[in-house]
Amino acid sequence: MTKPLRVGIAGLGNVGCGVVKILQQYPDMIAARAGRPVEIVCVSARDANKDRGIDISAYEWLDSPERMAGDPRLDVVIELMGGAEGTARNLVERCLKAGKPVITANKALLAEHGLELAAMADSSVVPLLYEAAVAGGIPIIKTLREGFAGNQINAIYGILNGTCNYILTEMRETGRAFDDVLKEAQQKGYAEADPSFDVDGIDAAHKLSILSALAFGVKPDFSKVDIQGIRHITADDIACATQLGYRIKLLGMARRVADGRIVQRMEPCLVPEHSPIGAVDGVYNAVLIEGNFVGSSLLVGRGAGEGPTASAVLSDIVDVARHLDKPLAGRPVYGIPALELEDAVWGGPEDILAHFYIRLSVLDKPGVLADVTAILRDHKISVESVIQRGRSPDQPVSIILSTHESRQSDVVAACSGIADLDLVRAEPTVMRIVQF
Amino acid sequence: MTKPLRVGIAGLGNVGCGVVKILQQYPDMIAARAGRPVEIVCVSARDANKDRGIDISAYEWLDSPERMAGDPRLDVVIELMGGAEGTARNLVERCLKAGKPVITANKALLAEHGLELAAMADSSVVPLLYEAAVAGGIPIIKTLREGFAGNQINAIYGILNGTCNYILTEMRETGRAFDDVLKEAQQKGYAEADPSFDVDGIDAAHKLSILSALAFGVKPDFSKVDIQGIRHITADDIACATQLGYRIKLLGMARRVADGRIVQRMEPCLVPEHSPIGAVDGVYNAVLIEGNFVGSSLLVGRGAGEGPTASAVLSDIVDVARHLDKPLAGRPVYGIPALELEDAVWGGPEDILAHFYIRLSVLDKPGVLADVTAILRDHKISVESVIQRGRSPDQPVSIILSTHESRQSDVVAACSGIADLDLVRAEPTVMRIVQF
Repeated sequence: MTKPLRVGIAGLGNVGCGVVKILQQYPDMIAARAGRPVEIVCVSARDANKDRGIDISAYEWLDSPERMAGDPRLDVVIELMGGAEGTARNLVERCLKAGKPVITANKALLAEHGLELAAMADSSVVPLLYEAAVAGGIPIIKTLREGFAGNQINAIYGILNGTCNYILTEMRETGRAFDDVLKEAQQKGYAEADPSFDVDGIDAAHKLSILSALAFGVKPDFSKVDIQGIRHITADDIACATQLGYRIKLLGMARRVADGRIVQRMEPCLVPEHSPIGAVDGVYNAVLIEGNFVGSSLLVGRGAGEGPTASAVLSDIVDVARHLDKPLAGRPVYGIPALELEDAVWGGPEDILAHFYIRLSVLDKPGVLADVTAILRDHKISVESVIQRGRSPDQPVSIILSTHESRQSDVVAACSGIADLDLVRAEPTVMRIVQF
Repeated sequence: MTKPLRVGIAGLGNVGCGVVKILQQYPDMIAARAGRPVEIVCVSARDANKDRGIDISAYEWLDSPERMAGDPRLDVVIELMGGAEGTARNLVERCLKAGKPVITANKALLAEHGLELAAMADSSVVPLLYEAAVAGGIPIIKTLREGFAGNQINAIYGILNGTCNYILTEMRETGRAFDDVLKEAQQKGYAEADPSFDVDGIDAAHKLSILSALAFGVKPDFSKVDIQGIRHITADDIACATQLGYRIKLLGMARRVADGRIVQRMEPCLVPEHSPIGAVDGVYNAVLIEGNFVGSSLLVGRGAGEGPTASAVLSDIVDVARHLDKPLAGRPVYGIPALELEDAVWGGPEDILAHFYIRLSVLDKPGVLADVTAILRDHKISVESVIQRGRSPDQPVSIILSTHESRQSDVVAACSGIADLDLVRAEPTVMRIVQF
């Protein structure tokens, strides 16, 4: 057997412990697949004395993970601490500058600083691998970089946040309200005490911007993702979507539109219930890729958790181990150095043509529908269907409209006008209907 | 740019032409992703004068593709002729013995002779790559070999034949009979004039045996796949399955069962309509992998056709190009040489516990159900539900039973007894119900 791959692991939360477990439980399997044994040399985490249910006594403990960057014993540093700034960023930057390969699961770091980091990796000619950063149970980074290398990618869609998908699934299955399901998810540990990173779409948008840069070969730009979370989705929306044959998903989309512009959106959408992506429930993630030769391909798997994310880290470890003598370059996008990537021209809602779902909360009085449809007409939006949910004269009721194909910017403008009507009692809820 | 990868293409059907088109239309994209330009040196096919809609005048024409094996100009030979024997086998064997890397889309060849070929590749230390042999639009070989390298695979399921899935989908959507839909599929070019290779499950079983060997690290053995096709599925079966909330799919399964035995089955099964795999319709394929860390992951994509299969070939081309200086070994299963792979211990229907669907065609007379259920009881099979479809005294009617969890061997034995009853008018149809 050739010389071992020696790794340092920074961060011993769920994922870090998962990686240690796989390496401890299956050393021979991993050695066969990696072409060499994989040895943990040192580990680092916040608390040296915490009981993690694994034996780490054989590894050197470092109070400061940054020391791994300069440690000549290490072939690769595995960063599993998380966070876009601070120690994680510091460690990864030092490693890359020092010519040390890095494996990371840190989507926030990559979404915020991916371009600089990739440029550092390029300049030191070392790999920066991050399969675990997006949808652990789905080999999406490898599929985009290698599996679909023969394709121009036209679009990528994704259900990228398991917490949101779990909440939306629970709301549908139980008919309960968002706040109620969120509270339960927090009690069960599926949602954080401060859930905004998840339910406001930030985490999913981080992942989308990583996939988008990879898919289109452009510089990543997280600030160019239009983001809307799921807090405003009501039990009524879920029921209406079901009635229309759809499911509500927090769905990311990155798509090349006219003149080579790219749009990046993360927002709740309606997808057909009888489609594979419509059936992706609970904590599962999904990524759908449209390539010009391969057509549409969908990958579904667990998005987070110890096992799936550790599995993704192992995939990167095996890749580094196999190519230790002739390192993979940083290659954020195929063979193109990060700084030579195209600057994308970003599009907006004016580039999106789709059918839309609109829910209005209105006072149940004669004439309200005439006012609403007049505004839609003025924005050249034609209505496909109207459903009033219940009847209670002079009380607020929900009206659900679906539109024929319309421009998203027109729909947003029209809904802004509709919101100003006297009889309209709340901000309209607008969702794109996506056919797969 | 480093030196080009020089390829020879044997076979210019749909897939061969698709590969030529991608290389002609996107030379810069492929060069960036492969780390070097990819040049077609020579091509070979049956008919030199056929109009294929592509310009091949720049490539040397070989009447005999076998000459590629000894051609020192070629870095890799791409075999896209098909067929388990004859020229394709001859070419691939000569290449591997001569130390020439091979990329192939030939599932029949690999299913029948994969072990010998992998051993030749090992002994010459050259890559034998075959992403296009199974489900072109799904990067399943790469996912098993690399993406899920950190896992022990417990099971793999697959919808692996687009023709069968198209026929079953059409039967469901139109209510028509198998023969009728098959005839139309033949007219549309979705099914061959002799459809047996597809509809009798052989093609799908070829693919399953390739995936199974890869998933479990054992020597492939196509003869150990229990195969049943879809000819016997009636419109009534489809309607009953729908009524019960299921879809019928020709579903492959390879699973590790008790004592490390492996079962390989390819047969029509019932899967929940509201599951991602249940929503895989038409010519799409799907593969579901259960790994011990990653959990369940599902990959869906087009199974065949020029674009998807050519895309898979390009994935292999890019892999070979990137590692030209330090070739990937044959590695049929991770780092293990083919001849050192485990000999699997194969299991059978006695290893399968599942719920079952049983359709009986019986004369509508009092007492028939008592006879049927007595036989089931004698085989320790307990009935979950019974539905009689229609009533017509003294005429044949369908009875649909579903069982509680039972052993497949017991169900088969019971149905053999039931078939002998006087009032039973046709072979019972038995299908496993698989929950996802």
